[in-house]
Amino acid sequence: MKTLLLKKKDVSALITPDMVISAVEESYMAYSRGDTIQPPIVSVALPERNGEMDVKAGYSKTTSMISVKCASGFYDNRKTGTFPNSMSTLLLFDGTTGFPLCMMDAGTVTGWRTGAAGAVSARLLARKNAKTAAIIGTGDQARMQLLALTSVAEIESVFLWGRSRDQMLLYLEEMCDKVKCKITPADTPQSAVMNADIVITATPASEILIKRDWIRPGTHIIAVGADMEGKQELDSLLFKEAKIVVDHLEQCSLRGELQNPLRQGVIRREDIHCEIGQILLGKKNGRETDDEITIFDMTGMAIQDNVTALKIYESALDLELGTYYDFME
Amino acid sequence: MKTLLLKKKDVSALITPDMVISAVEESYMAYSRGDTIQPPIVSVALPERNGEMDVKAGYSKTTSMISVKCASGFYDNRKTGTFPNSMSTLLLFDGTTGFPLCMMDAGTVTGWRTGAAGAVSARLLARKNAKTAAIIGTGDQARMQLLALTSVAEIESVFLWGRSRDQMLLYLEEMCDKVKCKITPADTPQSAVMNADIVITATPASEILIKRDWIRPGTHIIAVGADMEGKQELDSLLFKEAKIVVDHLEQCSLRGELQNPLRQGVIRREDIHCEIGQILLGKKNGRETDDEITIFDMTGMAIQDNVTALKIYESALDLELGTYYDFME
Repeated sequence: MKTLLLKKKDVSALITPDMVISAVEESYMAYSRGDTIQPPIVSVALPERNGEMDVKAGYSKTTSMISVKCASGFYDNRKTGTFPNSMSTLLLFDGTTGFPLCMMDAGTVTGWRTGAAGAVSARLLARKNAKTAAIIGTGDQARMQLLALTSVAEIESVFLWGRSRDQMLLYLEEMCDKVKCKITPADTPQSAVMNADIVITATPASEILIKRDWIRPGTHIIAVGADMEGKQELDSLLFKEAKIVVDHLEQCSLRGELQNPLRQGVIRREDIHCEIGQILLGKKNGRETDDEITIFDMTGMAIQDNVTALKIYESALDLELGTYYDFME
Repeated sequence: MKTLLLKKKDVSALITPDMVISAVEESYMAYSRGDTIQPPIVSVALPERNGEMDVKAGYSKTTSMISVKCASGFYDNRKTGTFPNSMSTLLLFDGTTGFPLCMMDAGTVTGWRTGAAGAVSARLLARKNAKTAAIIGTGDQARMQLLALTSVAEIESVFLWGRSRDQMLLYLEEMCDKVKCKITPADTPQSAVMNADIVITATPASEILIKRDWIRPGTHIIAVGADMEGKQELDSLLFKEAKIVVDHLEQCSLRGELQNPLRQGVIRREDIHCEIGQILLGKKNGRETDDEITIFDMTGMAIQDNVTALKIYESALDLELGTYYDFME
């Protein structure tokens, strides 16, 4: 039996917003049902090379698939012009035999499933009539979040803020063709968020970017950036009165935006509303009033890669894309 | 840039006993010098399927290579006739950029590097004039150990014992062509080991197979089988007067043969002579007298896969074997 190899362009041809949004919803539900195994993330940290390699393994009891994703970040690559800073390879194994069914370039998978996570949260937690969004950050995730969000919400106007004027221009140039809404650069984070129904923070910041008083009642905030100890984008005071929803409670408490208000004692664990999977399963409510501020804190889970990769693999089989290779011959 | 794919037959064509023995020696020295990063092993355990997947990541500071090996064991595969019980895939990444240089079938790698580990220990710890060996077990590792041992020692006679008469016959049939020494089946473990200069235990046993009194002074014992909690092949009393050498102290204490004498209080951590890498580095002595009993307890390390895989990759480049595939296109 042969292993299916999928290159970046195959994955790009197969992946769709709807596919990834339903994969993320299924993942969140599976996790909250207890139908997943997600061992601790393994990291090889190479600070002397400004690099790292993270290995995320996951298993879905629903589909019996094991996934192992090796994602690297070597942050001097782009400067030296050799490779992208981030590269990612995913192996999908049949969890009934251990056979490697598929190996794929997974850069696209991580970007899309993280973007889709924000969109899923917006569907459950943003006001139904949300029309404006603020994007804080100008990197890949700031792009993916907007692409996914506009596939689930009728966003008319976007305010963009980033530290670098040049990066903001690049973002505008690239994204104006990809989404129908108007994108306006903002001079400050405050002017970006003050009229937004949905605020997305997707920066590598480790200091407060968004202050409590700038956020109007009824806003939904999607906290993407914080994914390791020491990161912060939001004023901890925002958590005090907000409805807080997480993807993975333990992980968000340690590495997500939640680490800050918890450590500072602004909130306690009991103040967290629920995991997003519990809302999808109908066990907890999403947004209940037009006035509440909601925050979705996400850190990403292996099961999102797992379920997304399976859908890509199945679609590749249907459409006969990819190359077969017999490793065991 | 493209990734090199190596299938089982490529790896088999490239791998040699000398290559793997030097890879294992380099690994042990690198580990004892502190030149490795080996994160904890990640496991997806699926007892309801009689299966598991282990992910072992490692990094060598000497060569700047990152390896990730995904090794599965699904122990009903052979019965159902679908796949081998154990399958293994290894990814080798450039640790300066994160680029996936090579993906290979690694079943051969694990078998060979484990076999070579026994041989390396025999070179350092067996008597120079060792001529006889006992092999306890008739599985893949019982084969690999003998192949590797005979490449470093002038073994004339081997006594074989296994639980199953049929498996012993299969072993004899297969191995008699591959090694020059005479292989004699033994009726009992005792009769196999009592005249052996080198004893190799490579079974999945969880009860004592080899008793204290059966082992002559001057014997070198290679404990291969115990690799998880609850396993045991050797009488704990054997450790009391033996010179004990390990591959990885922490791991052997928890999962190796050492777990038993340590837990039972037969020995303490201070009674362990050293890591094998310290002998290779000249910091500790190997065998010092013809009378001492030596025990090498091995549990396997990711760095052995890492260094072996790099040598295979380099040899494939030299000999232009394998298939290139551009995942990032």
